[in-house]
Amino acid sequence: MGARVLVDGAAVEQVSALDRGLAYGDGLFESIRLVGAVAPLWSRHMRRLDEGCRRLRMPAPDAGRLWHEALQVSHDMAQSVVRITVTRGLGQRGYAPPAVTEPTRIVAAFAPPPASADVYLHGVRMRLCSLRLAEQPLLAGMKHLNRLEQVLARAEWDDPAIAEGVLCDGRGRVISATMANLFAVVDGQLLTPALDRCGVAGVARAEVLSVLPQARVGELMLDALLRATEVFLSSSVRGILPVQSLAERVYEPGALSRQLQQHWRKLGFSMEHGG
Amino acid sequence: MGARVLVDGAAVEQVSALDRGLAYGDGLFESIRLVGAVAPLWSRHMRRLDEGCRRLRMPAPDAGRLWHEALQVSHDMAQSVVRITVTRGLGQRGYAPPAVTEPTRIVAAFAPPPASADVYLHGVRMRLCSLRLAEQPLLAGMKHLNRLEQVLARAEWDDPAIAEGVLCDGRGRVISATMANLFAVVDGQLLTPALDRCGVAGVARAEVLSVLPQARVGELMLDALLRATEVFLSSSVRGILPVQSLAERVYEPGALSRQLQQHWRKLGFSMEHGG
Repeated sequence: MGARVLVDGAAVEQVSALDRGLAYGDGLFESIRLVGAVAPLWSRHMRRLDEGCRRLRMPAPDAGRLWHEALQVSHDMAQSVVRITVTRGLGQRGYAPPAVTEPTRIVAAFAPPPASADVYLHGVRMRLCSLRLAEQPLLAGMKHLNRLEQVLARAEWDDPAIAEGVLCDGRGRVISATMANLFAVVDGQLLTPALDRCGVAGVARAEVLSVLPQARVGELMLDALLRATEVFLSSSVRGILPVQSLAERVYEPGALSRQLQQHWRKLGFSMEHGG
Repeated sequence: MGARVLVDGAAVEQVSALDRGLAYGDGLFESIRLVGAVAPLWSRHMRRLDEGCRRLRMPAPDAGRLWHEALQVSHDMAQSVVRITVTRGLGQRGYAPPAVTEPTRIVAAFAPPPASADVYLHGVRMRLCSLRLAEQPLLAGMKHLNRLEQVLARAEWDDPAIAEGVLCDGRGRVISATMANLFAVVDGQLLTPALDRCGVAGVARAEVLSVLPQARVGELMLDALLRATEVFLSSSVRGILPVQSLAERVYEPGALSRQLQQHWRKLGFSMEHGG
């Protein structure tokens, strides 16, 4: 695979076959973009991981140790994506959490996805996924390991010209893309979907919301998305991607996408040179 | 842990930290009760596993090889539970399924949960879980690895006198217990919840439905469950468990529970001697 991996700090590529992360998806992860030894959104990732551990009632890992391990696995890579996975550790058969949890910690470095300057300039093509996200407030927002919905949604197409798919909930509300959050300018107002019933509250989305406080978090219906004047995606791994089209609908990359791409460069990212 | 494990046929207890079963819960499992070298519900387990693989678009494992491995891990155990886990195997980062899937196969034997004759005679005590199951028809019925809802529901209580919890969906329909399916006699009619929007379609439930063709599969509201005259659980691991109480409501073990326990013994199970 070419990935460098640390499991609980040891340079091994294996975990126990009895880990609850594998048995039940009982854990969380973060996918963190690094430029050399810098991770501009690191503190946001750690905050989300902490909050997820609190919600799943797992002990949170030490952020200092995670940072040390992230540098170790990515040490000679100019660009990397470090995936941190934290699970509830070993367990006997059965859903009941163990009386004492010793979490498992996996830190792995990958090459970033290939990305051309063209994509950042002209935007990505999207489709509408037929899968509808289920509503589970107790899991919404978290980047947990139960990701079969995203796997099935991403398996709906294999045309490499289509970069992403729009995911809606059962009531026709737009929630996100399969691996990114979504923003749209509708009637002059910047909107991004609320994620209190489904979806993943992205770290890049949080950064966008702090840069553009005029953005409204709320309901975004599909028909509103189709008449938006600007649409873009935010991703901690890929940055800010203008949306060029959704099925037959064509969009122009807009001023907010450009402003945010500029902000991303100021943070220290250089997404166009990944892969 | 004391478990005996085979991973892809090899006597190791480890899997790759990059397995998609761990990364995304991208896979399925079966928990199969064995009495010595006999698994009375084996063919039902294999049918469900095949159907799950088809729905997740994964190659199904060879049932003959699984049986051979189940016997291997449990060979000197008078009573055992063999867990078979099948994942979509190794993957790079990203939800898109790999072009060619080489599934990972984990077969592990555990001691059965302790069970007293008293529990089979007088029944189990249950509570009502506050978690509501999300509705996802594309995953409903399958025994997949995305089980955080069950983990959170089971974590709602730690009183060892309470054996199980009732799970409802967001519309107040009863779906199941956290690790078993549920049957109730309401107004003289045997009912079990439909599982086309959430829940796991248990192998023991399928056996009950074949033995008692008068059972109706449909909607079971919580108020109907509370006025039922007989309630029991079905589990491939624990068999038929009468329900003694749900919160303040007390039930009497009834004739159908006894008939099914008798059927389970005829199949070759002896649940009371597990653990």
